[in-house]
Amino acid sequence: MTKWVYRFGAGVAEGDATMKALLGGKGANLAEMSAIGLNVPPGFVITTEVCTHYYARERTYPADLTSQLDEALAWVEQAVGARFGDPKRPLLVSVRSGAPVSMPGMMDTVLNLGLNDATVEGLAVASGNPRFAYDSYRRFIQMYGDVVLGVDHYLFEEALNELKEQNGARFDTDLNTAALRALVDQYKVIVARDTGAPFPQDVRVQLWGAIGAVFGSWMTPRAVTYRRLHDIPSSMGTAVNVQAMVFGNMGDDCATGVAFTRNPATGEKAVYGEYLINAQGEDVVAGIRTPEALSEAMAAAGGRPGRSMEVRMPEAYAELCRVFDQLERHYRDMQDIEFTIQGGRLWILQTRTGKRTASAAFKVAVDMAAEGLISRDEAILRVDPASLDQLLHPTLDPAAEKQVIAKGLPASPGAVSGKVVFSADAAERAGAAGEKVILVRLETSPDDIHGMHAALGILTVHGGMTSHAAVVARGMGKACVCGANEIAINYEERQFTTRGHRIAEGDVITIDGAAGTVMLGEIATVDPQLSGDFATLMEWADAARRLRVRANAETPLDARTAVRFGAEGIGLCRTEHMFFQPDRILAMREMILAEDAEGRRRALAKILPMQRADFVELFEIMAGRPVTIRLLDPPLHEFLPHAPEDLEEVALAAGVEVRVVRRRLAELREANPMLGLRGCRLGILYPEIYEMQARAIFEAAVAVHARSGATVVPEVMIPLVAMAGELALLKARIDAVAAEVAKESGRTLDYLVGTMIELPRAALRAADVARHAAFFSFGTNDLTQMTLGLSRDDSGKFMEPYLKQELFAGDPFQTLDQDGVGELIRIAADRGRATRADLKLGICGEHGGDPASVRFCHRVGLDYVSCSPYRVPIARLAAAQAALAGGDDRPDD
Amino acid sequence: MTKWVYRFGAGVAEGDATMKALLGGKGANLAEMSAIGLNVPPGFVITTEVCTHYYARERTYPADLTSQLDEALAWVEQAVGARFGDPKRPLLVSVRSGAPVSMPGMMDTVLNLGLNDATVEGLAVASGNPRFAYDSYRRFIQMYGDVVLGVDHYLFEEALNELKEQNGARFDTDLNTAALRALVDQYKVIVARDTGAPFPQDVRVQLWGAIGAVFGSWMTPRAVTYRRLHDIPSSMGTAVNVQAMVFGNMGDDCATGVAFTRNPATGEKAVYGEYLINAQGEDVVAGIRTPEALSEAMAAAGGRPGRSMEVRMPEAYAELCRVFDQLERHYRDMQDIEFTIQGGRLWILQTRTGKRTASAAFKVAVDMAAEGLISRDEAILRVDPASLDQLLHPTLDPAAEKQVIAKGLPASPGAVSGKVVFSADAAERAGAAGEKVILVRLETSPDDIHGMHAALGILTVHGGMTSHAAVVARGMGKACVCGANEIAINYEERQFTTRGHRIAEGDVITIDGAAGTVMLGEIATVDPQLSGDFATLMEWADAARRLRVRANAETPLDARTAVRFGAEGIGLCRTEHMFFQPDRILAMREMILAEDAEGRRRALAKILPMQRADFVELFEIMAGRPVTIRLLDPPLHEFLPHAPEDLEEVALAAGVEVRVVRRRLAELREANPMLGLRGCRLGILYPEIYEMQARAIFEAAVAVHARSGATVVPEVMIPLVAMAGELALLKARIDAVAAEVAKESGRTLDYLVGTMIELPRAALRAADVARHAAFFSFGTNDLTQMTLGLSRDDSGKFMEPYLKQELFAGDPFQTLDQDGVGELIRIAADRGRATRADLKLGICGEHGGDPASVRFCHRVGLDYVSCSPYRVPIARLAAAQAALAGGDDRPDD
Repeated sequence: MTKWVYRFGAGVAEGDATMKALLGGKGANLAEMSAIGLNVPPGFVITTEVCTHYYARERTYPADLTSQLDEALAWVEQAVGARFGDPKRPLLVSVRSGAPVSMPGMMDTVLNLGLNDATVEGLAVASGNPRFAYDSYRRFIQMYGDVVLGVDHYLFEEALNELKEQNGARFDTDLNTAALRALVDQYKVIVARDTGAPFPQDVRVQLWGAIGAVFGSWMTPRAVTYRRLHDIPSSMGTAVNVQAMVFGNMGDDCATGVAFTRNPATGEKAVYGEYLINAQGEDVVAGIRTPEALSEAMAAAGGRPGRSMEVRMPEAYAELCRVFDQLERHYRDMQDIEFTIQGGRLWILQTRTGKRTASAAFKVAVDMAAEGLISRDEAILRVDPASLDQLLHPTLDPAAEKQVIAKGLPASPGAVSGKVVFSADAAERAGAAGEKVILVRLETSPDDIHGMHAALGILTVHGGMTSHAAVVARGMGKACVCGANEIAINYEERQFTTRGHRIAEGDVITIDGAAGTVMLGEIATVDPQLSGDFATLMEWADAARRLRVRANAETPLDARTAVRFGAEGIGLCRTEHMFFQPDRILAMREMILAEDAEGRRRALAKILPMQRADFVELFEIMAGRPVTIRLLDPPLHEFLPHAPEDLEEVALAAGVEVRVVRRRLAELREANPMLGLRGCRLGILYPEIYEMQARAIFEAAVAVHARSGATVVPEVMIPLVAMAGELALLKARIDAVAAEVAKESGRTLDYLVGTMIELPRAALRAADVARHAAFFSFGTNDLTQMTLGLSRDDSGKFMEPYLKQELFAGDPFQTLDQDGVGELIRIAADRGRATRADLKLGICGEHGGDPASVRFCHRVGLDYVSCSPYRVPIARLAAAQAALAGGDDRPDD
Repeated sequence: MTKWVYRFGAGVAEGDATMKALLGGKGANLAEMSAIGLNVPPGFVITTEVCTHYYARERTYPADLTSQLDEALAWVEQAVGARFGDPKRPLLVSVRSGAPVSMPGMMDTVLNLGLNDATVEGLAVASGNPRFAYDSYRRFIQMYGDVVLGVDHYLFEEALNELKEQNGARFDTDLNTAALRALVDQYKVIVARDTGAPFPQDVRVQLWGAIGAVFGSWMTPRAVTYRRLHDIPSSMGTAVNVQAMVFGNMGDDCATGVAFTRNPATGEKAVYGEYLINAQGEDVVAGIRTPEALSEAMAAAGGRPGRSMEVRMPEAYAELCRVFDQLERHYRDMQDIEFTIQGGRLWILQTRTGKRTASAAFKVAVDMAAEGLISRDEAILRVDPASLDQLLHPTLDPAAEKQVIAKGLPASPGAVSGKVVFSADAAERAGAAGEKVILVRLETSPDDIHGMHAALGILTVHGGMTSHAAVVARGMGKACVCGANEIAINYEERQFTTRGHRIAEGDVITIDGAAGTVMLGEIATVDPQLSGDFATLMEWADAARRLRVRANAETPLDARTAVRFGAEGIGLCRTEHMFFQPDRILAMREMILAEDAEGRRRALAKILPMQRADFVELFEIMAGRPVTIRLLDPPLHEFLPHAPEDLEEVALAAGVEVRVVRRRLAELREANPMLGLRGCRLGILYPEIYEMQARAIFEAAVAVHARSGATVVPEVMIPLVAMAGELALLKARIDAVAAEVAKESGRTLDYLVGTMIELPRAALRAADVARHAAFFSFGTNDLTQMTLGLSRDDSGKFMEPYLKQELFAGDPFQTLDQDGVGELIRIAADRGRATRADLKLGICGEHGGDPASVRFCHRVGLDYVSCSPYRVPIARLAAAQAALAGGDDRPDD
């Protein structure tokens, strides 16, 4: 005989969490809770096999289902001390669907099944609350009518609204018992009229009706479509859960509440939660009565001593505390519980893993490891790396008053206050004078880099999460709010207006890049705490991971931040950022405007000592850690101003006529600069540029060695290689410079030459490219742009509709497109290593700090990830989790 | 005993063409010529094994080499009737290197070896020309001194120049015997001073010196580098060829000449060539004497009857004709021959396959097949498809007078004359009035498309072979000269100046897009002849090929041209080109400027009937052949004007305020339009656009069916798909429109929906994409741009240096980058067919008309290529050659 019905609760558990296929997700969980001895309201599961049978045999049930169900129902009656359909002590049940995987489009829940014209009176008496009884009854008819009988729910709403109007009631709660009785009568008329039969008074008819509705909902078009889209076989079937209702509003020995086993805000191990005596869950939601604290300590802290559950219901409280222990021991994590007390007896309705703040997550994980509840590895897996972002930047003091004057996109986290400036130059001047400023622009461009460096935060009117401002700010770890389009900037009058406020240059505002808000005046902030539990867990993570973590950094400040956050090297030093400083950009422009190689060399000779000094400082800060230096990458026009009024100034500074500047600008103009003359193409056309940079690097390495005796092994990186030949050519030139410097200095030089893999072709031809490269660094920003044919600057226009229509799983510039771009990385890694087994592999796009992407990097066997300094801890933790999760795709060594 | 020396000539042939590894390329060819009985000056080859021995044994020769060489030399002496070093009848020889593969960096040739102070007198007597003898001697010393003894050739040149100055001679030929004798003395002094030893008078010392120089040149750095770059093993070694010199200047029974076995200009089977009595090859080059025709027919035609070889040397002529026959029978192709007659005896010095014009190639191939010399398949393989380009366009009448006023790049072939216009609008007006015009612009943009359509030819000042003008012109089959930067345009005054000429609007010029020239006035042209041999061979080709050939076409004219050139369908109809016509662009702009979907629909409703009419016409012209229609692809801003003065006009026409146009333009502005909002992204954001287009297509299919009863099966193509989801979404919408049209018309519709594969991601995810696509069409223009990260519009700046440094094998926009882009095509074809075995695969980029790319398409198993109408015959022939060459990479069916 097949067993179709499985019981749970009241000391019985005919199943556990592993039996999802048979009992469905909900049923298996209820069985599990019962199995560990929790007092769960009793009930039973009709298995998924019944569903399969139902559809295999023309929607009929197994012959022996009725008898098994009757038996289980009788057991529930006995366990609860009430009888299904009994007018005095009626047993009420809930009926829910429960497929093995959670699925929209299925029947959800029918509550209070078992109410009819007779049992409603029994409920009224038992609860001492006739209004509650009739409200429950009318809700049941409405719910049952809608989901089981197929009555248009609009009909019920119409009747309810009419009644409210007649009674002058604004809310449902304004209706008294008499009105609700009348509503019940009217609902019954609606059902009778709409279905041609009276509302079923026979509770067994009600029950079988609800069970049939659950099975029927398995084949609704919506459910079928969902399964097709998610590759869920229809043969899986759904289970039906039938469970006794318990009530927290049956008198003063009843209550309802929610609890966390630890404080979800701080992670502290203390009873945390609220309850209400003689109330139902809805009462808490409705906000009519204020819930009280569970523990007396919490109640006292809240100014309501003596009203805690600990004081008012000490036995139930003690039981709850025991349950806490039991749950944490069993589930080995902080739990979030819903409970009801009926007649002094504690029923656990639901338990699930509790959500928590980032800092609570660290404390809970470290504490639980200390308590021996979980291992250190498990502790590492318990913290969501993405949540660290809020932890690593200053945040607004929660106690501070705030006046929000505009809202934009949360482009880069951090809360900062400063004086408003409207140009990069002004930001730089103020920054040099030691002032804190916020740079406010319609949008930013590479011309603004120096100002963005000088500002504490950036606020733009246009642009999305992947605009220039957002990307650069995240890279710099600066707070940034983008696309705050309420703001109207008037550059000429140096002010902006928003929501009736007029903010002039020099006025102080605060921006919160984690929330996307702009506020008036200076608001206190709280600095991140990187010690204690954070430090402990990160130490464990570092021990667990295989992937190395480096930072993308070029300024001394960035490099120092990176080291402080635990970076093990620099994976991407973008030398062009060094050229935007005022003293250098002049020489840079002179170089660009030069007529020939000779003129370029003269200008580059001015830059050489500055570049060398930069590298000396960087090497010293990094103290022996590897430093990967990318040679000049962006198109040259980024170094020239575009505003007509600036051209004259540039011409003057470079000692050429304005028409020369204008002509050169026209020559440099490109239809698609992203696909134009940049990266190694510059190095090939103008050999003197890379030669200068290589010389600066090697001379700096020699200088640092001379000064400190430390050996620096610079990693010279060539960008935008498409053909192995490009790399071969440039490597030969770099080797020649190294040989020169070695000869001049009398020292042997140790260095690596490698390449970015950021074009699909380079990935496909990795076997050839690796013949000339000691390392590959995947430039996933550009690789994403090329692979998807998608400009980071322009995709904002359709990113939102694409995400909404699920055409993208996520913004491909934030989290790696593993199916597309990821395959190219896999191909390149495999082919590159086939040529050169010791090829060093890393990633240096924005993705290096995205947890899902870091997991991918681990799986495909990269050696390191490199990300902005502020995301280094995120990458460290994600790398550890990836290592612990296993699934290393690399072939065995 | 190893045989180190192999003899050839004078009735002996110790080898043949297959023995390249042992005898080197030259040696094997000489052996082959001897083997078939040609009278080749006798000589011998020292094998590559001697070279290997030489390097394996510290640069020593095999012990028995000397005796074998002596024996061979004695045989040559006997065959020629002269003795090496004999002062009376000296044997002179040439010494050449000859590796199995042709290789730069190796010693080339030493001629007249065997001359010394004694033998030079013998030569003077034998030739009756002492000046010749001493000139030969001084040349020999110079050549031997340079390549064998390592004397700086500058020293010889200096001495020669000094001598010329002393003698008041302008050219070498102005020096008399006495002067040359003096020069010989001086050369000997130079050699003695520079090498510390006198110039070797012993002819055997000379010979061994030259042999050693050949073997030594095998290991020069240049040769070593070349071998490394081309993966040629050094162990291969080089052979040395020693061959008797013969002289055509020993009297009136001597001559020298060149001949073709057929007329290389027309392909006609007739003796073709020139000769000179009592002369050396150099005499022809020096231009002192005018060569005479070989046949009397040719001589008479040239106005010099009675001076032909046929008349003057009838026996040698008859022998030459026999040789012609023999050569064609043996080599089975037209030969290009160098010959010398010494003492009435015909010596064949060289024979190789003769170069010919495109039309001659057709005639020779078809004739030879008719003569039974070659098979039809071989005939197909004999014509270079690329050469057809000159054949399919009008060419300048060779007889016409021309005054070239500027030179640019030969961007798109064809010779056309017309009035100069300076704007697309003017071109269109003139075109509408039936005038022939040439559009002259600094450069063109998509705004100019309508003008380019109206013009006969395009002339631009800027831009390279892959500029917008060049690409579009090739696509349209219009003549185009690009980058004619001598020209200075003054748009305001509507004129341009060049080389002192001032050309005003309306003046007539002629451009030759095959030569890149611009000429004054109208010049007569010759129309292409597509019948006769051309038609015959193309018919054979069509029978031989597997690949189908379609055309990229959207206008009725293009479609008709395509059919005339043998296209089997349209592979790419770019609907956007249809929107640039004046009546449509207004509605298009109205659509772009609309505030909402409703407004867009209103504007699109105006376009619908026009689009439908376009498709009706296209379907009727194509008469049942497949037509692939690509839905709207380019970014919308291409349809808006950018000049401020045009904005008002557009606003007026669209019924909106100017600021709306300006705002919309700003909204549409993109940093990298190639990677922006275009292709299917437009279709996803603005569903109404593709819905209108789909409706136009389906309604047209219904209309054509109603009118003619013909069934049209349109192929709807979605551009720029990156994710399978995009295609799924759009296909569903198109299917819905088809269902609507089917319902409205009461007809069932047969159609295919497919996609362009032009993003690397789509290629990689082809397995998913194919689930929703009935066909893939590889858009190799964009796929190249994305895979290489290379903008077609911007790469001109570095294309030349890249080609020069061999970083690109060829312009990747003209011939497919098979290693990179090609691999993506392979991946997509394999994965797509794995999902859907009957997936139709084609290519529709510029590459569809490039022979090497067509071969690739055949090898990877595509079903068709699509190219511009004028390249259809090229593709047909290339496809046939690919099929005949074999090497199909497709797995067996």
